[in-house]
Amino acid sequence: MTNQMDMSVFENLESAVRSYSRSFPTIFEKAKGSQLWDGEGNTYIDFFAGAGALNYGHNNDAMQEKLIDYIKSDGLLHSLDMATPARAEFLQKFNDVILKPRNMDYKVMFPGPTGTNTVESALKIARKVTGREKVITFTNAFHGMTIGALSVTGNSFKRHGAGIPLTYSIAMPFDDYMDGYDSLDYLEKMIQDGGSGIDLPAAVILETVQGEGGINAASFDWLKRVEELCRRLDIMLIVDDVQAGCGRTGTFFSFEKAGISPDVICMSKSISGSGLPMAVTLIKPEYDQWGPGEHNGTFRGNNLAFATAAEALNHWKTDEFSEAIEQKSELFLKRLNQFVEEYPELEAEVRGRGLMLGIASKKEGLAGQIAEAAFERGLIIETSGPDDEVLKMLPPLIIEEEAIVKGLDIIEESIKAVLGKEEAKV
Amino acid sequence: MTNQMDMSVFENLESAVRSYSRSFPTIFEKAKGSQLWDGEGNTYIDFFAGAGALNYGHNNDAMQEKLIDYIKSDGLLHSLDMATPARAEFLQKFNDVILKPRNMDYKVMFPGPTGTNTVESALKIARKVTGREKVITFTNAFHGMTIGALSVTGNSFKRHGAGIPLTYSIAMPFDDYMDGYDSLDYLEKMIQDGGSGIDLPAAVILETVQGEGGINAASFDWLKRVEELCRRLDIMLIVDDVQAGCGRTGTFFSFEKAGISPDVICMSKSISGSGLPMAVTLIKPEYDQWGPGEHNGTFRGNNLAFATAAEALNHWKTDEFSEAIEQKSELFLKRLNQFVEEYPELEAEVRGRGLMLGIASKKEGLAGQIAEAAFERGLIIETSGPDDEVLKMLPPLIIEEEAIVKGLDIIEESIKAVLGKEEAKV
Amino acid sequence: MTNQMDMSVFENLESAVRSYSRSFPTIFEKAKGSQLWDGEGNTYIDFFAGAGALNYGHNNDAMQEKLIDYIKSDGLLHSLDMATPARAEFLQKFNDVILKPRNMDYKVMFPGPTGTNTVESALKIARKVTGREKVITFTNAFHGMTIGALSVTGNSFKRHGAGIPLTYSIAMPFDDYMDGYDSLDYLEKMIQDGGSGIDLPAAVILETVQGEGGINAASFDWLKRVEELCRRLDIMLIVDDVQAGCGRTGTFFSFEKAGISPDVICMSKSISGSGLPMAVTLIKPEYDQWGPGEHNGTFRGNNLAFATAAEALNHWKTDEFSEAIEQKSELFLKRLNQFVEEYPELEAEVRGRGLMLGIASKKEGLAGQIAEAAFERGLIIETSGPDDEVLKMLPPLIIEEEAIVKGLDIIEESIKAVLGKEEAKV
Amino acid sequence: MTNQMDMSVFENLESAVRSYSRSFPTIFEKAKGSQLWDGEGNTYIDFFAGAGALNYGHNNDAMQEKLIDYIKSDGLLHSLDMATPARAEFLQKFNDVILKPRNMDYKVMFPGPTGTNTVESALKIARKVTGREKVITFTNAFHGMTIGALSVTGNSFKRHGAGIPLTYSIAMPFDDYMDGYDSLDYLEKMIQDGGSGIDLPAAVILETVQGEGGINAASFDWLKRVEELCRRLDIMLIVDDVQAGCGRTGTFFSFEKAGISPDVICMSKSISGSGLPMAVTLIKPEYDQWGPGEHNGTFRGNNLAFATAAEALNHWKTDEFSEAIEQKSELFLKRLNQFVEEYPELEAEVRGRGLMLGIASKKEGLAGQIAEAAFERGLIIETSGPDDEVLKMLPPLIIEEEAIVKGLDIIEESIKAVLGKEEAKV
Repeated sequence: MTNQMDMSVFENLESAVRSYSRSFPTIFEKAKGSQLWDGEGNTYIDFFAGAGALNYGHNNDAMQEKLIDYIKSDGLLHSLDMATPARAEFLQKFNDVILKPRNMDYKVMFPGPTGTNTVESALKIARKVTGREKVITFTNAFHGMTIGALSVTGNSFKRHGAGIPLTYSIAMPFDDYMDGYDSLDYLEKMIQDGGSGIDLPAAVILETVQGEGGINAASFDWLKRVEELCRRLDIMLIVDDVQAGCGRTGTFFSFEKAGISPDVICMSKSISGSGLPMAVTLIKPEYDQWGPGEHNGTFRGNNLAFATAAEALNHWKTDEFSEAIEQKSELFLKRLNQFVEEYPELEAEVRGRGLMLGIASKKEGLAGQIAEAAFERGLIIETSGPDDEVLKMLPPLIIEEEAIVKGLDIIEESIKAVLGKEEAKV
Repeated sequence: MTNQMDMSVFENLESAVRSYSRSFPTIFEKAKGSQLWDGEGNTYIDFFAGAGALNYGHNNDAMQEKLIDYIKSDGLLHSLDMATPARAEFLQKFNDVILKPRNMDYKVMFPGPTGTNTVESALKIARKVTGREKVITFTNAFHGMTIGALSVTGNSFKRHGAGIPLTYSIAMPFDDYMDGYDSLDYLEKMIQDGGSGIDLPAAVILETVQGEGGINAASFDWLKRVEELCRRLDIMLIVDDVQAGCGRTGTFFSFEKAGISPDVICMSKSISGSGLPMAVTLIKPEYDQWGPGEHNGTFRGNNLAFATAAEALNHWKTDEFSEAIEQKSELFLKRLNQFVEEYPELEAEVRGRGLMLGIASKKEGLAGQIAEAAFERGLIIETSGPDDEVLKMLPPLIIEEEAIVKGLDIIEESIKAVLGKEEAKV
Repeated sequence: MTNQMDMSVFENLESAVRSYSRSFPTIFEKAKGSQLWDGEGNTYIDFFAGAGALNYGHNNDAMQEKLIDYIKSDGLLHSLDMATPARAEFLQKFNDVILKPRNMDYKVMFPGPTGTNTVESALKIARKVTGREKVITFTNAFHGMTIGALSVTGNSFKRHGAGIPLTYSIAMPFDDYMDGYDSLDYLEKMIQDGGSGIDLPAAVILETVQGEGGINAASFDWLKRVEELCRRLDIMLIVDDVQAGCGRTGTFFSFEKAGISPDVICMSKSISGSGLPMAVTLIKPEYDQWGPGEHNGTFRGNNLAFATAAEALNHWKTDEFSEAIEQKSELFLKRLNQFVEEYPELEAEVRGRGLMLGIASKKEGLAGQIAEAAFERGLIIETSGPDDEVLKMLPPLIIEEEAIVKGLDIIEESIKAVLGKEEAKV
Repeated sequence: MTNQMDMSVFENLESAVRSYSRSFPTIFEKAKGSQLWDGEGNTYIDFFAGAGALNYGHNNDAMQEKLIDYIKSDGLLHSLDMATPARAEFLQKFNDVILKPRNMDYKVMFPGPTGTNTVESALKIARKVTGREKVITFTNAFHGMTIGALSVTGNSFKRHGAGIPLTYSIAMPFDDYMDGYDSLDYLEKMIQDGGSGIDLPAAVILETVQGEGGINAASFDWLKRVEELCRRLDIMLIVDDVQAGCGRTGTFFSFEKAGISPDVICMSKSISGSGLPMAVTLIKPEYDQWGPGEHNGTFRGNNLAFATAAEALNHWKTDEFSEAIEQKSELFLKRLNQFVEEYPELEAEVRGRGLMLGIASKKEGLAGQIAEAAFERGLIIETSGPDDEVLKMLPPLIIEEEAIVKGLDIIEESIKAVLGKEEAKV
């Protein structure tokens, strides 16, 4: 109750645009690993992980130590794109641990510390390199809130916020968008047909698993074919791995198993490891045609983020972390499939890959009610999809089995409660 | 020399877009107050302050303590727009220390942690509220690198990076852009003339002192007249106080002495106090017409930044800090005016307000040569303006008199060296 | 030969943009009904009809008389949108003969005398009325060469001529564009899905039979479903009947048999009857929300065109003309189907409706070769389609059976000649 | 009275967009030279000349004969861009009578028969040739109603009709737009300043005398300086001579006395001589980089227009016609200046050049009242300017002195009547 009163500061002073403090109306005071605590002594399991920004969990001990040491050393906190040891360490370690072992040759750009910054930089370089303007995007894509990124984003509510017509993008059906219809045959025909009205694009931008769009996982075969199409038609391929990257789907990059080699890769969210703002844009050397400072930004040198980012890369020195994600994913999937079977009233299906999972229900509003009921029972979980029809699970990748089970139990209780309420209504 | 070798990691692994590591080619290991140290034991006076992001200096003791305490408490580092004590504390303190005493009534929006994010959010809300698309911007404006913000930015090199035509903006002459010509008479005539081809805009966006554009300070009278024009023609007024705000020109908001009341205010850079990424958009309540989540972003809840931001506000509890800035400004101005007089070969003039100052030279390349020479002598200083013709001084506001004098001495030496070299050439 | 020399005036003085004088390289001196004569005494059958602008044939006697009488009477030739008896007569007769008998209630707008003018006016009013910007267009659509109309046109060569990105349009698959796939299910899903990235459009614009796009006839069922979709989603329906209208497909409006009621109808080409420049935009009264002069143009009052347009409407006083078109169409279709069967080397199919017919060949360049061979043999015929793969037949609707047979004989000879040449090559 | 009833056909059947039939509410049955007659026997002097489309007067005898002969000869009325003797004759004669004697080397493009078509083609070729998108236009410019042309048009009412944001154009102050301020210094500074926000444009488009914009005549010196600026900055210069060309200002091209050589020239309105729809775009050979058919249109071959256009060129074989225009202009100017002096209540000034003249009054609504009063007295005259503040005089160039005097007498009477009424009110 005290806590509820405290929420008034947000209601009185913050803009109406705030959203999560409405879904999760309590003040969170502490967090560790996969748990959070509010000011009233309530504990919450985290199936949300900062919308994918906390893959390594909250307040990882090693990272905390790194942060405190860095601060105590009077290292630069803010350095734009000046050289610092923290920046150098990240660059070197990212190359050694991530790029080299995967035979990937990319230049690392620090475009500003957010997902929308990396997407904007990716679109800019693709347009600059090709001299073309249009970009192919897919249904239910989400790439960010600034005008360039918003133009390639699908959600009509967010698009409407722009206040200007969003142009230079061409929306195409994502994998499996239309039952029994091959979306890439259509895409290829539209691009190659000199009469289609579709101009040859600079690039295709995609998420391998769409998070905000409703946990839609493209098949590896589809991704492979997109890449092949891009090569054949001389179109640049941008993978926005902001949410699906950093291990979220089981491998560091979400597209590794598809065996594709994007021309530009966008990373943010969990790249800093600690939830501190950071983003990188990976660009194949031949396309790194920027002039010095042609794209810049004040917060390209968040050294605390570099410090924890380097620490986080230790997870990727062996395959163990990746394997653990797969095991946890199976644990989730088994149970989620059970839910769908046992509660046919959900009219639901399971979606996703790795620890980027969802239950999509055809019943309007149901996913939201379950999320709400789960919050009351101590689980942080959100919905996604154009109609918020998907109960979206993004637990920290380091989550322990016990917490998974507990979280899933809460979901099952919440399903029961919501369905019971539904029944009661009838 | 070892240090120089170390720079190779940036050259090899980082994108060609990097710029400051070219101007200041050394690895900075430590910083405190108004000084930096590189790995070779060199000390540098800071007349740059992270391009205005470090108004309170590097590694302020109290802020460091706040950071370490926060980390040790396992407080949430990343919270999107969920409620946390750190967010609440910032909101309350910002209201109590900044808004209320100035009789300002604004809702606080956290638009994502960078300058370009706050500008994009400002443009979006202005367009949404008015239902119009075009925005008046001024010559030599700089508002950011994402497509929305870049559209209202003047610099042609940066604009070219967009790869698409930048539209929906109308560039107008800034105060004093044309000798002996009143830019606002022109602006008003163009907007009011039904035949001018200038559509009624949603908003006017401006910096009261243009930093990147060459340290051009608008007169208070001009600002007052812009506001009056906006009111009369029902146009929203956006002040981008990202660089000029947080005390840079002597008062917390750069427009306080002009007595204007912008409809939307963009803040970032030094708002966190510590150089950590953070931004806020202040919106008059009647224009806060966002739907929940209509503009969002992963890093709207950088709690370490909130913690230091609240700490930084302590500077503003009395007028002392403000008065000290004015005194330091006078110290600078006296000496800069001396330079201009004593070295007529500079063909220069002094520009700016508060501790946002510059010497603009008509001699091509001269400002850059002086900055380079100054760096060699232990001063971090950059240039700005469309042709990099302005030696730009943005020292931390907390800089001590001794450091000021030392920095100015270095500038004078550098001027002499460069002019000497110039003479030697002839 | 003399004639060939005379062509030099065009080569020397006219822009490189000229095209038909390249395909039909002779100087045409006379024309009557369905025949043309050049300066060397050659006679040509007309299967082209001014690209659909001469549905009533060349130099109709009654129209010639009307023209001469009008000129002799010193009637105004040019009157903008001032009132003249010729304009009044056209308006009244168009209402009496065309609109009223079909139970159609439309306001008649004179938007300027060309097809692209009527399309631009249609797009403008749809955007004005709905307050939305985007317009759905279809693959292989052709609507005109000015920027508004070009934006909804498919052909990439023509689009490229714009020199600016063409925006505000969304290209969707036309009827039967993708084998076995329902293009309207796709369109509906894309529009209704709040996450598709497709903004709710102001209007759908379509040709019922695409002429330039390759003689693609939409089924009446498809058209009916498009209308139903537009009604359901509150989207305006624009039918561009510039080429398919004025009886070309058998009825005055091309969509009559589909039973639809477009919100805006674009007419030009044969609306004047004589080939003189004229266009009208028909707008449902509730959408006629123009201010006086909001769209204007110097040549909205081409009175000679009004005079012959009124005369042309006499064809529509009974059903005879319509029935004759159907009979001629059958004559054509029977023979064209024969060609396709007898010459399988053509790899062709017959397309179209009424006297808007084509043979589409999969063999690259073949249609063009046949057209060229036909011209040498005295037949004016052109190709269309994105790869000029369709031999396009648009004879004057008044063409006599004898001329049809003669023209078709020439086509058959030309097919033989071209195929023979092809064989000879092998 | 019968006549008034007849107007109902327009009110009932025609779109609300009609305008001149509201200003001149009568049905015009006949016209010859500089006079019109309505159905009630009223005679009108023509100071309007079809908004500049009837420079050679109504129903010129020689042209009428040409038309009738052409029709009787069964010459092609409609020929797209096929070769016809009429087209050849025009091309040759235009070269011989107009281009060659003026040492002008241009390719002639037939872009479709209206002013907006020629402007769209000019913008397209300039963008294609330069690879740039933006075009400089001037305050109070009028270039047409299709989206490309409308984007470079100033009038806000007309712009609003577009229903989409009009972009890719940059509005700059026309000659003398701002008292005591040099608009070209400003333009040059804005283009050359790398920080102005003004992108290097493809072209500058201008009218030498703005007709719709309020009869604003640029000085020859200003035009010369614009050309020099374009050359220096590598920008294409487009002169829209649609209204000011064909002798309207005294010479065939309006810019002859300025001694400039535009890269592209747009002509329409009086180019056909008879008021029939026709337009040409003149392009310097080096910029004629169209592909065949890259810009096309159904009515590029209006042969009746070609026939009278060739006839009209006879006026230009000697200097007599030009000299006569100058004399008539003086006659007008003398009297107009008298009006301004004798009726200071008009608060007016005289504007214009040749027979493109106006009286601009500062009194709101006055010009419109005078035009209305003049119509009642038998004079066709319209207003222009952003607020319809200019009484605009565009008599046929062939007008006889007697008609001039009579028309001017009517104006004076109308002035008196309106001022009297004004006085009466007070």
